[in-house]
Amino acid sequence: MVVSKKCVSRLSRYRKALLRFKNLGFVKVFSDTLGDATGVTSAQVRKDFSLFGIMGNKRGGYEIDSLLEKMQVILGKDQVHHVIVVGVGNIGRALIHYRAFEKEGISIAAGFDIDPMKISAKESVPILPMQELNAYIKKKHIEIAILSVSEIAAQETCNQLVNAGILGILNFAPIRLQAPEHVEINTVNLQVELENLIYFTKVLKPKKS
Amino acid sequence: MVVSKKCVSRLSRYRKALLRFKNLGFVKVFSDTLGDATGVTSAQVRKDFSLFGIMGNKRGGYEIDSLLEKMQVILGKDQVHHVIVVGVGNIGRALIHYRAFEKEGISIAAGFDIDPMKISAKESVPILPMQELNAYIKKKHIEIAILSVSEIAAQETCNQLVNAGILGILNFAPIRLQAPEHVEINTVNLQVELENLIYFTKVLKPKKS
Repeated sequence: MVVSKKCVSRLSRYRKALLRFKNLGFVKVFSDTLGDATGVTSAQVRKDFSLFGIMGNKRGGYEIDSLLEKMQVILGKDQVHHVIVVGVGNIGRALIHYRAFEKEGISIAAGFDIDPMKISAKESVPILPMQELNAYIKKKHIEIAILSVSEIAAQETCNQLVNAGILGILNFAPIRLQAPEHVEINTVNLQVELENLIYFTKVLKPKKS
Repeated sequence: MVVSKKCVSRLSRYRKALLRFKNLGFVKVFSDTLGDATGVTSAQVRKDFSLFGIMGNKRGGYEIDSLLEKMQVILGKDQVHHVIVVGVGNIGRALIHYRAFEKEGISIAAGFDIDPMKISAKESVPILPMQELNAYIKKKHIEIAILSVSEIAAQETCNQLVNAGILGILNFAPIRLQAPEHVEINTVNLQVELENLIYFTKVLKPKKS
C-alpha cells in the first residue's frame, strides 16, 4: 500500500477533529462532518479510511471511539516516541517546551547545542553538548530529530544526524537538506510561510487609501 | 494573472538560493542549478520566471543581481512589513525573537497576551494586553498576524483579528480556522508535521532488531 504524506497529514487532522467531537459528547460522525472540520471532501475522507480498511455505515456513520482506536495504531500513537532537538535557539527552546507534543505521545528526550552557555544536564529536558550527539542517538535508539540550527550549520548537522542513525528530520532551517533516500525530511520554513502570506495580502491586495 | 501559493513559495525559495549563490561569488545562474538547489525541475523554474516576465538566456543563464531585484519587488521585499504576534506562549515568544524574520524585512511590531504576567510595554517588542488588540491593529494599520494561542482560543481570537481588519494570519493552532474569503490563512501544524515524520520513519519502517 502506498500512502502519501498528504494522506498521513489528513489522518492526523481527522484524529484531532475526532478528539474534539468526542469531547463535545458525540459518539458517531459522518464523513461529511469530518470533511467540513478538516477542509476536505467527504469522498476524500471515505477514500482515506478505506485505504486502511476502515468502513463506515451509510445510515449510522463511523463510531468515533473505534475510529480513534484504529488511528492510534495507524499513526503509531500507541507508543511514546522519543525525539531530540538539535540547536537550542529561540525556536529550538520553544519546541523543547512545547506542551502540545507531550499530549500526542511525543517526548523530547534531549536538546543539543554547540554553545557551552546553553548546556545544562540538570533541566527536565537536558541540553547536551554536540560532542555527545552521536553516542546519545545510538545509545537511546533515537530515530527522529528536530533540526533548528542556523542555515549555515544545517547541512553539516544533518549529515551528522544521518551518520548517527537518524531516520526522520523535522527541519526548521530555511534550506533544502540533502540526505540519503531512506531518511525522511519535513521542512517547516517559517519565513516562506510568512512571505507567502505577505505576498497574498499586501502585494496582491494593496491597501485602499 | 493567477499565481498559486505553491508558486509564491517557490519564488521565496529561489530567492533564498540566489542569495546563497551570490554570497559564494556567482553572478549568473542556470535554471537547472536553481532547480537542484530548491528541489524543482528546471522547466518549472523557467515557467515560474516567465509568469513574471523574467526571461533567461540559453547560453548565459540568468543574472543573479537582476533576478534578485525583480524578486524583491514581486515578493514585496522592497518595504518593511509589520506583523503582530497574538499569544505569547513558547512558540509566540520564539517567533517574536526570531532574528531570521528581521533579515527578510519582516518586523514584529508587538505581541499580545491575556496573561497580565506577560504584559511588558518596555521590551524592544512590547507585549500588550488583548484589550488593546483592536485599537492597535487599526491605529498602526497592521494587516498580518501570527496566531499562536491555544487550540481552544484560536477561533475566537481569529474572529477578533478579522474584525479588527487583519487580512493574513499565520496560524500555529492545530485547528482549521474559519474566516471570510478575503482573509488568507496559512496554518503551520507542528504536531502534524512531527506525526507525519513518525509515521514514515517508525510505523512504515519498523526498527530492525
